[in-house]
Amino acid sequence: MPDAVGFIGLGAMGKPMALNLRKHGVPVVVHNRSRDAERTLAEAGASVATSPAAVAAASHTIVLMLPDAPDVAAVLDGPQGLLSALPTGAIVVDSSTIAPAAARAFAAQVAARGGAYLDAPVSGGEIGAIEGTLTFMVGGDADALDAVRPLLAHMGTAEKIVHVGPSGAGQVCKACNQLVIGGTMVAVAEAIALARKAGVDGAKVRQALMGGFAASRVLEVHGERMLTGNYKPGFKARLYKKDLGIVAGALAEAGVVALETALVQQLVHAQLAAGEGEDDYSGVAKSIFRLAGLD
Amino acid sequence: MPDAVGFIGLGAMGKPMALNLRKHGVPVVVHNRSRDAERTLAEAGASVATSPAAVAAASHTIVLMLPDAPDVAAVLDGPQGLLSALPTGAIVVDSSTIAPAAARAFAAQVAARGGAYLDAPVSGGEIGAIEGTLTFMVGGDADALDAVRPLLAHMGTAEKIVHVGPSGAGQVCKACNQLVIGGTMVAVAEAIALARKAGVDGAKVRQALMGGFAASRVLEVHGERMLTGNYKPGFKARLYKKDLGIVAGALAEAGVVALETALVQQLVHAQLAAGEGEDDYSGVAKSIFRLAGLD
Repeated sequence: MPDAVGFIGLGAMGKPMALNLRKHGVPVVVHNRSRDAERTLAEAGASVATSPAAVAAASHTIVLMLPDAPDVAAVLDGPQGLLSALPTGAIVVDSSTIAPAAARAFAAQVAARGGAYLDAPVSGGEIGAIEGTLTFMVGGDADALDAVRPLLAHMGTAEKIVHVGPSGAGQVCKACNQLVIGGTMVAVAEAIALARKAGVDGAKVRQALMGGFAASRVLEVHGERMLTGNYKPGFKARLYKKDLGIVAGALAEAGVVALETALVQQLVHAQLAAGEGEDDYSGVAKSIFRLAGLD
Repeated sequence: MPDAVGFIGLGAMGKPMALNLRKHGVPVVVHNRSRDAERTLAEAGASVATSPAAVAAASHTIVLMLPDAPDVAAVLDGPQGLLSALPTGAIVVDSSTIAPAAARAFAAQVAARGGAYLDAPVSGGEIGAIEGTLTFMVGGDADALDAVRPLLAHMGTAEKIVHVGPSGAGQVCKACNQLVIGGTMVAVAEAIALARKAGVDGAKVRQALMGGFAASRVLEVHGERMLTGNYKPGFKARLYKKDLGIVAGALAEAGVVALETALVQQLVHAQLAAGEGEDDYSGVAKSIFRLAGLD
């Protein structure tokens, strides 16, 4: 009786996303490695399945929100995996951030079982997940996406559900997203370091810059963090490090020389080397401030 | 009879700025190295002065919009310079983009003559100058700024006239502005290179990224240029190179290690080395595309 929507992976992002499905009255069957998040969903009216296979038996649309590609592989193809019980015509919406090449391989596996796999990573962070205003960057079959659009619109903003291209294209887009944020973040941190050491009020600089071509969401949100020194996550630096590994792999696969992104990656390594991997990723500014002899 | 506003430097930025003063009925006396722009202003009802000293004799507020610090020095202190005839209490508004240290030195010179000097560089580009929507980043005496605010509001947006701090602070802010734009621009170009080589539609990527934390004015405006290959200026790369020289000097003076900005500067040098100094500065993307083996 595949009428519920399956949801596997109830972490910082997955839990609020699944809760938003419940808030819109969608029947949901969940599965998670740890029981705590499952309980929260059960209290919100979701059924709990004991394995990915049990999720598949109850749903023909299954959303995955997992840490990385090996986790997705285990859920799909491991013991009592999703593929072992996948209904024909099922749609797997994988919102995990993984390598484009891994997404293409998963798409082929799911297709061989008669289903469709969409790579559908998100941006907007935990706040976007909670508020249901995520952006979805989707790769894969356009008809499959159209079938799940109403569902994704419960978790994201309808106009921000973008069909980027074929399988893998969503993950390429997410890599571009993480890459652009990193370069912008470091630029903002360098500017704030300059302002601080030149004895100029960084808040005034941010205000002035927001009025022109230097304006960005990073300057607005993360610039504010850097000015106040509030690096409470947000999005943890150690997870951003993982994403930059995916970016570096995608760049290597595509044959793109990205000098700035390589530098951003090194600065994030410095952030983790300083023991700051649990900080928000905007805390990379601290590595830049240290190089400038600032606190 | 100092009742007009003086305007010296009628280039791509200065000419539309001075014209906006005229559009608001402000009496203007202009001086420029070349006669053409003076004629345009004369047709708009401005008086033409034959030297900076003659401008000073007719105005107690004088706006400068010049290419670089040596040009400002020549106008202030050269033959028939502004300082030789500056009325007591005059306010010099220097909207040129120059080094913070130079701005502080000019402020001291003008103060010694009984006037006030504001460093007041702008952002918003030629379009902002034409439309009268510039941002002013102002360093110097707050009372002097308040006295000229109504005037600046004819050339910029009132809420975007920001008093950043004491003399030089406006130029530090402008350096931060140029630095942030550069880092963001290169990040956007690297992302578009990745999308292109991975076979993904860059326009879709840009659309998806505009919905989240990667959103910026650079992605919006210059990302569009990079996607269509339209590098008609805008703001010429050779002028951006000059600004990055100021940024590098300000970083060195303040003792800030800015690895990303150093890299941006080198990529702009590559752009000029490719003979593309007359392109818009977003054309730095071409250097990145070339490194990736793209057209």
